Amino acid sequence: MTLVNNQIILAERPKGMPDSDTFKVVQKDVAELEEGQVLVRTLFVSVDPYMRGRMQEGDSYIAPFKLNEVIKGGSIGEVVESKSGRFTPGDVVIGMFGWQEYYTANDLEIRKIDPSLAPISTHLGILGMTGLTAYFGLLEIGQPKAGETVVVSGAAGAVGSVVGQIAKIKGARVVGIAGSDEKIDFLKEELGFDEGINYRTTEDLVSDLKRACPDGIDVYFDNVGGGIADAVFTQLNRHARIPVCGAISAYNLEKVDNGPRVQTTLIKKSVLMQGFTVGNYSDRFNEGAMQLGQWLQEGKLKYHETIIEGFYHIPNAFLDLFKGNNIGKLLVKVADQQYGK
Amino acid sequence: MTLVNNQIILAERPKGMPDSDTFKVVQKDVAELEEGQVLVRTLFVSVDPYMRGRMQEGDSYIAPFKLNEVIKGGSIGEVVESKSGRFTPGDVVIGMFGWQEYYTANDLEIRKIDPSLAPISTHLGILGMTGLTAYFGLLEIGQPKAGETVVVSGAAGAVGSVVGQIAKIKGARVVGIAGSDEKIDFLKEELGFDEGINYRTTEDLVSDLKRACPDGIDVYFDNVGGGIADAVFTQLNRHARIPVCGAISAYNLEKVDNGPRVQTTLIKKSVLMQGFTVGNYSDRFNEGAMQLGQWLQEGKLKYHETIIEGFYHIPNAFLDLFKGNNIGKLLVKVADQQYGK
Repeated sequence: MTLVNNQIILAERPKGMPDSDTFKVVQKDVAELEEGQVLVRTLFVSVDPYMRGRMQEGDSYIAPFKLNEVIKGGSIGEVVESKSGRFTPGDVVIGMFGWQEYYTANDLEIRKIDPSLAPISTHLGILGMTGLTAYFGLLEIGQPKAGETVVVSGAAGAVGSVVGQIAKIKGARVVGIAGSDEKIDFLKEELGFDEGINYRTTEDLVSDLKRACPDGIDVYFDNVGGGIADAVFTQLNRHARIPVCGAISAYNLEKVDNGPRVQTTLIKKSVLMQGFTVGNYSDRFNEGAMQLGQWLQEGKLKYHETIIEGFYHIPNAFLDLFKGNNIGKLLVKVADQQYGK
Repeated sequence: MTLVNNQIILAERPKGMPDSDTFKVVQKDVAELEEGQVLVRTLFVSVDPYMRGRMQEGDSYIAPFKLNEVIKGGSIGEVVESKSGRFTPGDVVIGMFGWQEYYTANDLEIRKIDPSLAPISTHLGILGMTGLTAYFGLLEIGQPKAGETVVVSGAAGAVGSVVGQIAKIKGARVVGIAGSDEKIDFLKEELGFDEGINYRTTEDLVSDLKRACPDGIDVYFDNVGGGIADAVFTQLNRHARIPVCGAISAYNLEKVDNGPRVQTTLIKKSVLMQGFTVGNYSDRFNEGAMQLGQWLQEGKLKYHETIIEGFYHIPNAFLDLFKGNNIGKLLVKVADQQYGK
């Protein structure tokens, strides 16, 4: 029996916001496994803003996607066939197999996860890359101290929602910036943020920041860049730290992203800005995941997932990231587990 | 006998570039000394770009100058009268007495310097604030390693010329950006810089940077901000470090200083930007001054001073800083020592 694998490929490099011409669904037969290979059926696919960067050519920390090849990204699947001693059918595994229904993995490309610890999808979110991004960016660069004020933008997103909660664990005052009143309610009522600001409805973001941060801002975890970052800059305290994690406001811009230059503020306030990607901390992922898992078990960390069902909805789920509709980690569920959970 | 003290005061806060209306010379009688006081006659006055910031009101790391009060700044003088057991006439002292011919100092406000070690003026330059700014900014934030490429802007200035030499001592390739061919020659022939770029005559700064930095840029010591910083950003390597020391291109701007936002580059390259002022390292000034003095004695560091003579030329000397004419530390000599050197 020949299995058919549906793949979503990069059909053309987007200019500005990706659209229906950017992606294309193609079918490929799944080849027979060779020794050391494992056939994985995709269960969950992660869609993340950073993937926009890989859709265009250019110099970055990660190679661009190739045209007419499958879009790669964090995914969870189950092993359905194995010619490797390391895996047996039913194993739940994580890897970068991306936007396709099946993946023939070399057995060193995937890693087993333990489905008894937490729902498997959390390994793409709070226990995975987005949780680790929040953990290392906030603690290594932001270094919040008890009593300090931490502001996070993209606060209801997969990274921001974890950043704010870790900052609360560390005793900071936490202010989230997000794009809907529903998100602000979620941050304050579900996650324990001290204040929230809806950047879409504010009449004056600087005034709202002053009100929410009467003692100024010590740490700004920046997921968005753009005009929101500009406003936060006006309220920084001396020796403020800015982990620069994302600039989603700029990812789909077709022109140069101009704004007030930061240098004078950096000097006047002795401010640190440090761009980073989670890969910088790869030798410490185990430490981070263990700490996040412990906080999760202790009830100190909560997580929220927005799960969209169906393989063919992956491109739209990805585009939703830039509309700012999702709360928490955005995932696409591609299939149910067939082996026992 | 009543001594008359000429002072230069801040007559009005400048909008944009300061001019002849900004400053005014006034005379004040020197009062009789009280116990614990010392009368100092000014010998050298330092003029520095950061003083522009103090001429306007606003939130910064240092309080603004007050209207109709003397402009304070680094100065060297000799004690002419003392009612303190700590000083005797003839002592050469350093303090912040600023743009005036005499200063009645509390004896804790001034510090003796040893005129036998090096010319006394060096304590306002390479052995003083500008040398220490270069030392701590480059070594603590920039952390250049042997074989890396260090670019410094304002390279022929009091800070930049020391930054480049220290980077050479650490084994880096050093490229200086400055505003005249004379300065470029000075950097390469006198100070041992590997390459120099004249930003005033370049047709394409990015291309010139590519040529001068074939392996990219690992450390950018930023004294100027603006379009020069924008160009350097295009050539940064992964994990580049940017000590943000000055933004002289912006100090006299009357409008918002707009340019390409830095966030996306910071993320893509995991770049560090750290604004600082030398005061952040005040508890380590002795260490820095000793190391700089040792390098000076060993001939590993050279210094250049541009000395303008005459008290009444102080305002014009200050304005010269923004024309970019001076090489090395810019000082005004106000008087000769009267006691033996």
